[in-house]
Amino acid sequence: MIKLDHKDILNLEKYFRISLVTKLSGIKSANLIGTLDENGIANLGIFNSVVHIGANPPYLGFIMRPLTVERQTYNNIKNKKYFTVNQVTTDMHKNAHQTSAKYPKGISEFEACNFTEHYLDDFPIPFVKESPIQIGLSFQEEHLISVNKNILIVGKIEKIILSSDFLSSDGDIDLEAIDTVGVAGLDTYYSNKRLGRYNYARVGQTVTEIKDIKST
Amino acid sequence: MIKLDHKDILNLEKYFRISLVTKLSGIKSANLIGTLDENGIANLGIFNSVVHIGANPPYLGFIMRPLTVERQTYNNIKNKKYFTVNQVTTDMHKNAHQTSAKYPKGISEFEACNFTEHYLDDFPIPFVKESPIQIGLSFQEEHLISVNKNILIVGKIEKIILSSDFLSSDGDIDLEAIDTVGVAGLDTYYSNKRLGRYNYARVGQTVTEIKDIKST
Repeated sequence: MIKLDHKDILNLEKYFRISLVTKLSGIKSANLIGTLDENGIANLGIFNSVVHIGANPPYLGFIMRPLTVERQTYNNIKNKKYFTVNQVTTDMHKNAHQTSAKYPKGISEFEACNFTEHYLDDFPIPFVKESPIQIGLSFQEEHLISVNKNILIVGKIEKIILSSDFLSSDGDIDLEAIDTVGVAGLDTYYSNKRLGRYNYARVGQTVTEIKDIKST
Repeated sequence: MIKLDHKDILNLEKYFRISLVTKLSGIKSANLIGTLDENGIANLGIFNSVVHIGANPPYLGFIMRPLTVERQTYNNIKNKKYFTVNQVTTDMHKNAHQTSAKYPKGISEFEACNFTEHYLDDFPIPFVKESPIQIGLSFQEEHLISVNKNILIVGKIEKIILSSDFLSSDGDIDLEAIDTVGVAGLDTYYSNKRLGRYNYARVGQTVTEIKDIKST
């Protein structure tokens, strides 16, 4: 086993430290966040920090890096007040990784990285047509993290688009069938295989599996 | 495709909505958070919301549900100022799920769910001995999310313990070999298979794979 103290971590070579620390907490879901700038040019960026904030009403959040350089996603969300979150699958993952390149303002990552803008009803921001789970959100609040100026963005879920093939009659989404990917740190992608779905855990009882429930 | 607006989501049956909304954003890494109460009894709970907050200095965060009921993890972190985050593997995942049962204060989930308390050096909180990645953190700050009273907790990484077998010479952690699990929502666990590790994306270049780098 390797043991590192805080000082040891600070003394690591920069890229070694980034790789280690970003991967320590495990594999996160990969999502493409879609926004629109003030000229109507769409922006798309990959994020590994989307978290569940609440189910009733439904909210999601994600972490933005500090505003020490221009963050088009941040500026666009603050300007337009809406954004989309789109799940990445194995088929999409290389193109999704490419959205992390520093495209200049005025160039849409949708076009540059082979994704299709999908507008639905009156929602003002494009979804990613290739994605099997598309979520439309309205900006709610932001929190500046004092220690390093990262920002937590919180959005309310205004719209959900997903294929009924993957939704069971009790609201479960089959993420193995959807072939969703996870990402560790900034560079390593993983596919998923379902181990099991378990009942609500109770003191003094053994964990039991929920059997397959028919799709809707 | 199914299309749901905000009002449609609010009108869903409660457990259908919880399952759907908690799984929408994908599979998250599963971590056991260890704390110690004021009587020295250890507490262990499973969380799916651990996010990377920064690499230099190294920080992690996670989301706590509202304090409308007693949250032992929250109280213990605020009291002792330190906590541990321990990666869950396929071998551990059923016992890890069992920590979500409502054990009364005074009962340690370490003992009740077959995990071993592991104290290291002068770090005041036990790590989970069975976990291949153990992280010790100091509490830094908390942010109350206005819309639903969830709380973002931010900790500084004070200690890392991991097996050298899974660490490459450039800081990459082989999370497939570690056999880490992901969790969707509150009940469904997934194992992971590595798809690829890719170079930093650049405008006008194709995504290229990073070949295997020897372990340390």
